[in-house]
Amino acid sequence: MHGPRPNPLTSELAEAAGEILVRLRNASPRVHSVTNAVAQNFTANVLLAAGAVPSMTVDPVEIAEFVARADALLVNLGTLDRERREATEAAIAAAITKRRPWLLDPVFIDRSPPRAAFARMLVERKPSTIRLNGAEFAALAGVAPDDAALRRYVLDHPGVIALTGAIDVVTDGARLARLENGHRLMGQVTAMGCAGAAVVAACLAVEADPWLATIAGLLVFTVAGECAGERARGPGSFATEMVDALANLDRETLRARARTS
Amino acid sequence: MHGPRPNPLTSELAEAAGEILVRLRNASPRVHSVTNAVAQNFTANVLLAAGAVPSMTVDPVEIAEFVARADALLVNLGTLDRERREATEAAIAAAITKRRPWLLDPVFIDRSPPRAAFARMLVERKPSTIRLNGAEFAALAGVAPDDAALRRYVLDHPGVIALTGAIDVVTDGARLARLENGHRLMGQVTAMGCAGAAVVAACLAVEADPWLATIAGLLVFTVAGECAGERARGPGSFATEMVDALANLDRETLRARARTS
Amino acid sequence: MHGPRPNPLTSELAEAAGEILVRLRNASPRVHSVTNAVAQNFTANVLLAAGAVPSMTVDPVEIAEFVARADALLVNLGTLDRERREATEAAIAAAITKRRPWLLDPVFIDRSPPRAAFARMLVERKPSTIRLNGAEFAALAGVAPDDAALRRYVLDHPGVIALTGAIDVVTDGARLARLENGHRLMGQVTAMGCAGAAVVAACLAVEADPWLATIAGLLVFTVAGECAGERARGPGSFATEMVDALANLDRETLRARARTS
Repeated sequence: MHGPRPNPLTSELAEAAGEILVRLRNASPRVHSVTNAVAQNFTANVLLAAGAVPSMTVDPVEIAEFVARADALLVNLGTLDRERREATEAAIAAAITKRRPWLLDPVFIDRSPPRAAFARMLVERKPSTIRLNGAEFAALAGVAPDDAALRRYVLDHPGVIALTGAIDVVTDGARLARLENGHRLMGQVTAMGCAGAAVVAACLAVEADPWLATIAGLLVFTVAGECAGERARGPGSFATEMVDALANLDRETLRARARTS
Repeated sequence: MHGPRPNPLTSELAEAAGEILVRLRNASPRVHSVTNAVAQNFTANVLLAAGAVPSMTVDPVEIAEFVARADALLVNLGTLDRERREATEAAIAAAITKRRPWLLDPVFIDRSPPRAAFARMLVERKPSTIRLNGAEFAALAGVAPDDAALRRYVLDHPGVIALTGAIDVVTDGARLARLENGHRLMGQVTAMGCAGAAVVAACLAVEADPWLATIAGLLVFTVAGECAGERARGPGSFATEMVDALANLDRETLRARARTS
Repeated sequence: MHGPRPNPLTSELAEAAGEILVRLRNASPRVHSVTNAVAQNFTANVLLAAGAVPSMTVDPVEIAEFVARADALLVNLGTLDRERREATEAAIAAAITKRRPWLLDPVFIDRSPPRAAFARMLVERKPSTIRLNGAEFAALAGVAPDDAALRRYVLDHPGVIALTGAIDVVTDGARLARLENGHRLMGQVTAMGCAGAAVVAACLAVEADPWLATIAGLLVFTVAGECAGERARGPGSFATEMVDALANLDRETLRARARTS
């Protein structure tokens, strides 16, 4: 077995992310989101601004129809309820049947043991990417989120882990990148992380390598966050500027601003 | 049987829309909305900005009480779930009993056959206005949405059809108007169409001719969209400017900017 | 039995409110909100801007876990549905067990008799504060909301009543204060009152005297509203400015602007 590969260069990742952004804008993929009620509106607007076409139903009866017509699926566990549990299972089953990429965002599993158990069950269905913060990783994996633990987790549960925080860490076990963009106000707007995960799901729809797609989605989102932060006067205007910045983001800005290690 | 009447003049429609806007501001009608979770907050704010008083409960137990105290009802099928199906039926029954106008917005029925079947069942309850886009009309009526098909549909299902798009077409079978206002960013904000339908429902509460009421609601909304578009820097600021523009819209601006054919 | 005490001075209340704001910012209390779908996103952003950490799940299965980890609970009855009824009861039971303060916001009980009956049942569980407007008080208490009626109600149902309107009245039976800050646009944004009640819940988490906590929460919210009103061009930009103003509000501004009687 080989050891981990060396970290890729910022310029290579930024170049790849720029290409994925252009593809996203050209393809306008449909992204179906099973997400929490708090995040639904902002997530839909962020997807539209990034270039994707959102749908958001959580009705178990019809969700399979929507997922079958979508290019990627986002599953976010914030504000779980009975209907969303059922919808989540139906949506993932449809994504697996249609071979669509899907992303798991196990929001707040550190605060609710039944939610953590549900998340662990969903991981067995092999999401392309799992997006979570440190506390959520600890609740999922039972260990603190250092690089070695992330890699070990991915070896046992193949796919991509995106650990988000001040610095985002993205690994598929073999490759690992640290993404250093972002703005402090991103942590003061509700559903910001949920919306970022939706952009990753949109990138999964247009890029077959889930590790690159995940990096591209997070770079697009956090670079837009930096642009927004330069104009905002507080978290209210930041949320508005964020959507504008995403819609106005181009490949050149992404290349110029991306910082990875 | 007579053929279709000639299209009315812009100046007549703009004048009528201006009067309806003034009436809406003076009467502050209550509009109950059964709408999707993604659209609820924006729809409520748009209704308030237009001069109406929104209520939004979807609890089947109490919705009839709310509809009985409301002046118009909006039924939007985006993110349908079991509770919203029940609530929708209870709300329409109350509107019919109380002889309140109601509007059907069969969102995304082109993506979900069970939702399309539910919409066809609701059409039998005789909404005052049906608001939909071309794909949704095709899913509802089984034919492409040209003028003749719209008129034929309305002959079989009396009421008003508002086909929205870059140009909106509003017909009650005998009369047909094309509305040409709007802004490209309206298509990049989630729930924008849903909120526009809510403004139409508010106009139905203060104008007995549903064809004129529908035109007035759409003109108010799309002219406000043009004003907003002149200030916005992207879809995020556009949503904010849209609410401001609606609240600040006056009869003179409406008259000066309306374009119909 | 003593008569009512004299009204406290503005300077004393503003000073106390300023201290509570500082404590709120330092403690970052967790506030769990069972609130209506229309209000969820705005409420969460307002809580974050005020310095609290929101959680919003309404799943009856896991809500007790969230409330047990929270420092205060908000119960808002807008858009009630079956799940929210169950969740509300489970959340209040957990708050009582853990001795957490909780606030009841019986939205729109004047429009729905079943909702009013539910609210009366919840009052028996002894919320720290009840926040309502005049019509809601009349539906709850069966009498018009004058000062004497408020005091009598609190004698029968110990706690704090906050009657909100152009002037807010806050009484625990013995003490009564009138709060005169605010801005007319606060009435034109949906969920504004709901979000204000959430700020009160956040203050209840850091101040043991529920009467002072309630005053502090309302002053923080209405003074921020005045600051926002000076920058807004309509209700859309007002909502954005409100979140910015809350995040930027400091003790000095609160002291300088508070007006009570």
